Amino acid sequence: MTKGRLEAFSDGVLAIIITIMVLEIKVPHGADFTALKPLVPVALSYILSFVYVGIYWNNHHMMLSTIDRISGGIMWANSHLLFWLSLTPFATGWMGENHFAPATLAMYGLVLLMCSIAYWILQRLVIQANGPDCVLAYAVGRDVKGKLSPGLYSLGIAASFWHPWVAGAFYVGVALMWLAPDRRIERAMIKRH
Amino acid sequence: MTKGRLEAFSDGVLAIIITIMVLEIKVPHGADFTALKPLVPVALSYILSFVYVGIYWNNHHMMLSTIDRISGGIMWANSHLLFWLSLTPFATGWMGENHFAPATLAMYGLVLLMCSIAYWILQRLVIQANGPDCVLAYAVGRDVKGKLSPGLYSLGIAASFWHPWVAGAFYVGVALMWLAPDRRIERAMIKRH
Amino acid sequence: MTKGRLEAFSDGVLAIIITIMVLEIKVPHGADFTALKPLVPVALSYILSFVYVGIYWNNHHMMLSTIDRISGGIMWANSHLLFWLSLTPFATGWMGENHFAPATLAMYGLVLLMCSIAYWILQRLVIQANGPDCVLAYAVGRDVKGKLSPGLYSLGIAASFWHPWVAGAFYVGVALMWLAPDRRIERAMIKRH
Amino acid sequence: MTKGRLEAFSDGVLAIIITIMVLEIKVPHGADFTALKPLVPVALSYILSFVYVGIYWNNHHMMLSTIDRISGGIMWANSHLLFWLSLTPFATGWMGENHFAPATLAMYGLVLLMCSIAYWILQRLVIQANGPDCVLAYAVGRDVKGKLSPGLYSLGIAASFWHPWVAGAFYVGVALMWLAPDRRIERAMIKRH
Repeated sequence: MTKGRLEAFSDGVLAIIITIMVLEIKVPHGADFTALKPLVPVALSYILSFVYVGIYWNNHHMMLSTIDRISGGIMWANSHLLFWLSLTPFATGWMGENHFAPATLAMYGLVLLMCSIAYWILQRLVIQANGPDCVLAYAVGRDVKGKLSPGLYSLGIAASFWHPWVAGAFYVGVALMWLAPDRRIERAMIKRH
Repeated sequence: MTKGRLEAFSDGVLAIIITIMVLEIKVPHGADFTALKPLVPVALSYILSFVYVGIYWNNHHMMLSTIDRISGGIMWANSHLLFWLSLTPFATGWMGENHFAPATLAMYGLVLLMCSIAYWILQRLVIQANGPDCVLAYAVGRDVKGKLSPGLYSLGIAASFWHPWVAGAFYVGVALMWLAPDRRIERAMIKRH
Repeated sequence: MTKGRLEAFSDGVLAIIITIMVLEIKVPHGADFTALKPLVPVALSYILSFVYVGIYWNNHHMMLSTIDRISGGIMWANSHLLFWLSLTPFATGWMGENHFAPATLAMYGLVLLMCSIAYWILQRLVIQANGPDCVLAYAVGRDVKGKLSPGLYSLGIAASFWHPWVAGAFYVGVALMWLAPDRRIERAMIKRH
Repeated sequence: MTKGRLEAFSDGVLAIIITIMVLEIKVPHGADFTALKPLVPVALSYILSFVYVGIYWNNHHMMLSTIDRISGGIMWANSHLLFWLSLTPFATGWMGENHFAPATLAMYGLVLLMCSIAYWILQRLVIQANGPDCVLAYAVGRDVKGKLSPGLYSLGIAASFWHPWVAGAFYVGVALMWLAPDRRIERAMIKRH
């Protein structure tokens, strides 16, 4: 089974998710800049989610570029990841429109948490299908970021009910951690080839 | 005629269908978890339809991976399948927003029924175009699942007016039947090559 | 310049257009079948437009499969065609929601007319870029359908204000004319190679 | 790292952006032509934005066709460009629905300005990754259009508050400047190969 259509389908879904989120930024009725003010929290949520979907697309791209073989299990693990990512626009809109209310922050963190778990499952299956010596297994290594993220999201969810801004800081922090250039796969490829 | 663009177009339409359904989950106005309660039936419908579109994408991918030649008839049978699949978000939204009312459950089953018939027609044409000895013909074999599904959907439609939960059980049951790993095409490929 | 991305971009836009039209079929508030009754004209418009976009995708696919070279002019003629096609969901929704009122029927015909002109321009440029001996030039030949369509759409637009059903008959008729198997390109390819 | 998926993802996002803008043209409730009159400014905004997204797709296509290597930096610069382009439907809708009010014209210009800066950054990184002797570096040359555009957009933003039509003239003018055939990359490729 070739990975071409898996990539094409995932690209399609991710492209739509990232673009649909803009639809949550409803065109205001007023015609001056003050009409944009209530949109600020929506826009901030949108930027954060845009960065997250971008990170997932980037990592997904990297992960699949290292493998040759895909199985039925990988296809379903991939759909599972896309399912949780497809809830991002909803969680983003709910959080933005309610100005980061506790429950909406917790829900946003929950969607991020489920995405990170779904990504971890997919990564496990990809490594399994390609053997423990594959480039990806080598590149992921101890996978500090991957293991840290679910914990930090959980802390963020708990913090939502205590102090919203701390929860926001956790979610922004994890995004920044992933944005930091990560040359593991590139390094692994050079070392092995 | 190459199958590349047929796959690309189908991937695009399926990716949009699966993602558009999320738009049916309207962001609630309340900011606490109780505001999410009315969304539970919508979310359940969404999960079921996500799984169904995922199954169709998976099977469609498998089917086309076994063939080389496509004809004008295949292109139209494919569009016909996409037409019925494109009604899924509508049927999902109607059923979810009306808390699985009888008419909406029957309509949902009708769309599933038409999708399964359209898929069967496409499969027939693909086998015809590639000869009775092609991998797909061998893999499909007696096609128990494919023949059983329309019947089970019909029973579900009838049950909608009798007891909604029975109809729901039929629709969930058929999805689970298709989710069960199906190695027919993989086996057929190994045997023949 | 390769045609790969031109095809990918066109496939994407056409897949979105065909799927967005479903969004015009708004989920009704009632939960029984009578709630679907006002949707009948919307659904009929949707089916007709689905068939038209399908025909354009099919013909577009055929046309580009015959060529090797694309120019800047072809890229813009393609965007011009996509522009008019992107107005289809709007014209479809307006016509369906207003139960085929004269002005809406005329507008629908106008969009179809502009699409057919834009397609004709694109076809001219493709033939020009590849020489009068190319497969496409040979296949199109006297291009009876292509020349007839704008005239029939114009008659349909005029008939909108006289008797709506005649206009509808024109639009359905042209669609059927294009649906009839057209082996020109296939024949031309066999004769020349 | 291959550029295939970068192109596919960008094509997907651009295709969705260009098509989503049509959703801003809301189907009117009236059934005669006068009902379309309030849509004229929305339609004009849509046409301008369609042309702009078309220009970006065209140039993006050209730029990536000249390169072989992509880096993590290029992937993020590309996402950054897509982010600003994804705000086009919002800015277009706000401007159109408010009949080109000053603040909405300035906002539209700001989005165009940010897109042009994001494009410039991406172009820098692509040239850097491929060396100062690459086809793109040669083709871009002094990059008069690329340097002029941000200045003209800024003038347009300033003019929004002085006389709206002057701002509009700036935005339309820059689009026309880019529409004018630009054979730099084609020339550069011929000269070097």
